[in-house]
Amino acid sequence: MRNSKIVSLQEAVRRSGLKDGMTISFHHHFRGGDRVVNMVVDCLAEMGFKDLHLAASSLSDVHAPLIEHIKAGVISRISTSGLRGALADAVSHGLLKEPVVFRSHGGRGSAIAKGELKIDVAFLGASASDELGNACGVPRSDKAKSICGSLGYALPDARYASHVIVLTDDLVPYPNLPAGIRGADVESVVVVDSVGDSSKISAGAIRDSKNPRDILLAKQAAKVIIYSGYFNDGFSIQTGTGGASLAAVKYIREEMISRGIKASFALGGITAHMVKLHEEGLIGKLIDVQSFDKVAAQSIASDTSHIEVSAVEYASGEHSGSATHALDIVILSALEVDTSFNVNVLVGSDGIIRGAIGGHQDTAQDSALSIIVVPLLRGRIPCVVPKLTTLITPGTSVDVVVTEYGIAVNPSRPEIAEKLKEAGLNIVDIKDLAKKAESIIGTPDPLPFGDKVVGIVMNRDGSVLDKIYNIR
Amino acid sequence: MRNSKIVSLQEAVRRSGLKDGMTISFHHHFRGGDRVVNMVVDCLAEMGFKDLHLAASSLSDVHAPLIEHIKAGVISRISTSGLRGALADAVSHGLLKEPVVFRSHGGRGSAIAKGELKIDVAFLGASASDELGNACGVPRSDKAKSICGSLGYALPDARYASHVIVLTDDLVPYPNLPAGIRGADVESVVVVDSVGDSSKISAGAIRDSKNPRDILLAKQAAKVIIYSGYFNDGFSIQTGTGGASLAAVKYIREEMISRGIKASFALGGITAHMVKLHEEGLIGKLIDVQSFDKVAAQSIASDTSHIEVSAVEYASGEHSGSATHALDIVILSALEVDTSFNVNVLVGSDGIIRGAIGGHQDTAQDSALSIIVVPLLRGRIPCVVPKLTTLITPGTSVDVVVTEYGIAVNPSRPEIAEKLKEAGLNIVDIKDLAKKAESIIGTPDPLPFGDKVVGIVMNRDGSVLDKIYNIR
Repeated sequence: MRNSKIVSLQEAVRRSGLKDGMTISFHHHFRGGDRVVNMVVDCLAEMGFKDLHLAASSLSDVHAPLIEHIKAGVISRISTSGLRGALADAVSHGLLKEPVVFRSHGGRGSAIAKGELKIDVAFLGASASDELGNACGVPRSDKAKSICGSLGYALPDARYASHVIVLTDDLVPYPNLPAGIRGADVESVVVVDSVGDSSKISAGAIRDSKNPRDILLAKQAAKVIIYSGYFNDGFSIQTGTGGASLAAVKYIREEMISRGIKASFALGGITAHMVKLHEEGLIGKLIDVQSFDKVAAQSIASDTSHIEVSAVEYASGEHSGSATHALDIVILSALEVDTSFNVNVLVGSDGIIRGAIGGHQDTAQDSALSIIVVPLLRGRIPCVVPKLTTLITPGTSVDVVVTEYGIAVNPSRPEIAEKLKEAGLNIVDIKDLAKKAESIIGTPDPLPFGDKVVGIVMNRDGSVLDKIYNIR
Repeated sequence: MRNSKIVSLQEAVRRSGLKDGMTISFHHHFRGGDRVVNMVVDCLAEMGFKDLHLAASSLSDVHAPLIEHIKAGVISRISTSGLRGALADAVSHGLLKEPVVFRSHGGRGSAIAKGELKIDVAFLGASASDELGNACGVPRSDKAKSICGSLGYALPDARYASHVIVLTDDLVPYPNLPAGIRGADVESVVVVDSVGDSSKISAGAIRDSKNPRDILLAKQAAKVIIYSGYFNDGFSIQTGTGGASLAAVKYIREEMISRGIKASFALGGITAHMVKLHEEGLIGKLIDVQSFDKVAAQSIASDTSHIEVSAVEYASGEHSGSATHALDIVILSALEVDTSFNVNVLVGSDGIIRGAIGGHQDTAQDSALSIIVVPLLRGRIPCVVPKLTTLITPGTSVDVVVTEYGIAVNPSRPEIAEKLKEAGLNIVDIKDLAKKAESIIGTPDPLPFGDKVVGIVMNRDGSVLDKIYNIR
């Protein structure tokens, strides 16, 4: 083909004009199976780059090799939605000179669209691409090696980055259309052995729970939805990645069938559960910024009512067309909730970063009904607390907190409390939940935080919500 | 719905912050049936706006009412791909103070992407939209009133305009996805009685020819393709809107079947002919910036291998991922060709503007083989001439000129001439064609041009190719 964009990774980097100090970006659609971040940063290290700002949509355990690149000065700044594993541990202990900037998925989309997060070179892994860079996360040939489904978190990068490099493990004939990443936005295409291990896209945060407590919480959350006043024909729903919130879908399904209620759409990370309901005709459309498992990824490959959307279209607070603005109900998880309904999903009760903001801030704020499902205790750790380790989602965005010791409703939503009481649910004061946790566990010792800021938590509108200090 | 964007047209304009002197934009997917341009400009006139720059993807006969708005000072500048009818006539006679800026479809896309053509407020008609502005050119409900198919020429406006207003004649429930215009890019949605008369989308330039000369030309063009060396399995093709170029598809089809050759894709304005070949399995994908008739519009509504692309993705010269860069063969029409293979498709031999650049410059330059199909004479008007009325597509982009008196091959492509001669085609010198025309008609009198510049012809890269003077 004339104008083929196929080059080696090194050549693609050379053509990009990348310089020390610039910002490189990545998506995390392969989650724990991602091979692009490490491959690219290894290459950039070999090429001698220093002081780069790595702006990923998220990072996980698999990115532990970045620690060495940070120590060597290749990477000096990180922006991400989340951090887990050895890298998160090292960052929490002060690995980086500059604090990591944490943004929600919608907040990252907004920041990129507004130019607050300016990406110089985006490195975007794709399961199929043609020579002109039309690229997608689904298989397009018999030789496909990977599948990740929606490329929603990569789409703002493709649109707004100064230079876009697609990496693919399956080069297919032009035109690889339809495709979320369009060749007109792409400068180079690099063919690699593997962009990711698809068997790991449902690893990490996402799993089906068999934990009896999760199942109890799921049933309670389902009841909250059913009796909230928002469980009406044409309603819309998003579930987070927690076991309980995923399990809640099963109970909602039963009630939808028995009441003859259908949902207009499900949003967000789309799971096999949602695909099943969609295929049963219980959910009209699936709006998918991230396919949470292989079933979802396969569905988006073939079903025209299962639609890929960008992080901006999904959850930007500053684009009123984003889907969260049309969302009725969201079920979310938490590491901690405080007595003002503020939520922490990022920093563990040991002060170590071990999570991700994800779409938490975005969906909690924009949805008509946001439900946090959280156990009162995790082992010896209280989850309803007087004061959060780190503020991620402001309590003004949170409507209901479901625990195994009762359901707390934000005083700003008395009409919901009323409905749930009428339905016979155990409505409690959130302060009583915190006292209960304290009475069982006692007051935990203060965490040994240092005075170095290792993380900045941004709100989705670009303001600073909280700071994370190093742990000693 | 919370955050509904539905407002009246006047309110949408007020919210847009439109001011005198700003640039407003429109697409022309309804061609002669368009109702948006006149409706909006009537409204802006009523609201008292002056000195606006109207940047449409194209304008046609139906936009004659703009003449009064120009006289009243509401519109003072126009950018477009083409002009026809009374408006074109008036412009040619000096109606506007400023010259009209003519760009190719790819050139307009590039200019918008680069910010050379900065759109303040885009008014984009759609056959379906939801309350958040997810909008498309295909029906999405039983109450749909219109269909235009691809919204390709509206997509750069949706992406790059400072403010986007969708007008629709069918408001459908959220989420109207998939959709080319995404709600995240849209500020307001206006529900109107009609955005366009779909029965006219195949009117104007596009018609099936029964003219025997057109059929002769079509057969010759088909032979050029078949013997050119580019007629191989996996080839790609675009046809313009001329009767002969459309008819050529029929003859190519027969040869594809008998030789067992399939095309990888057809590009551009997609016609019922192309849809037929696609449905027969002779063309893999249809890449559609503009649906040239109702059959094509209906096809894009339901066929996932019939793909909407933006004008940038279609034909930008500065985005190497644009589809024209992968195009093998294009058949184009002409008003005039000169002896250096330069082409005019915009200004009649009477000096009056009566056409459109369309994708002519774009596809001629980027394709591997560009074929101009043109009669030697149209009535008393010679079409192969020593000197063009107006230069639209440089001869360096043109490979073959097919007339009923023989086929001229650009001397820069001797290998093509050789192949066509071997196939027994009548290869002639283009100068001899011009002499032949002159010998039949004589030398036309010089046109009575004045000294006022009424049009600027841009090349697709943003440089100026030619000027059009007023006709007296």
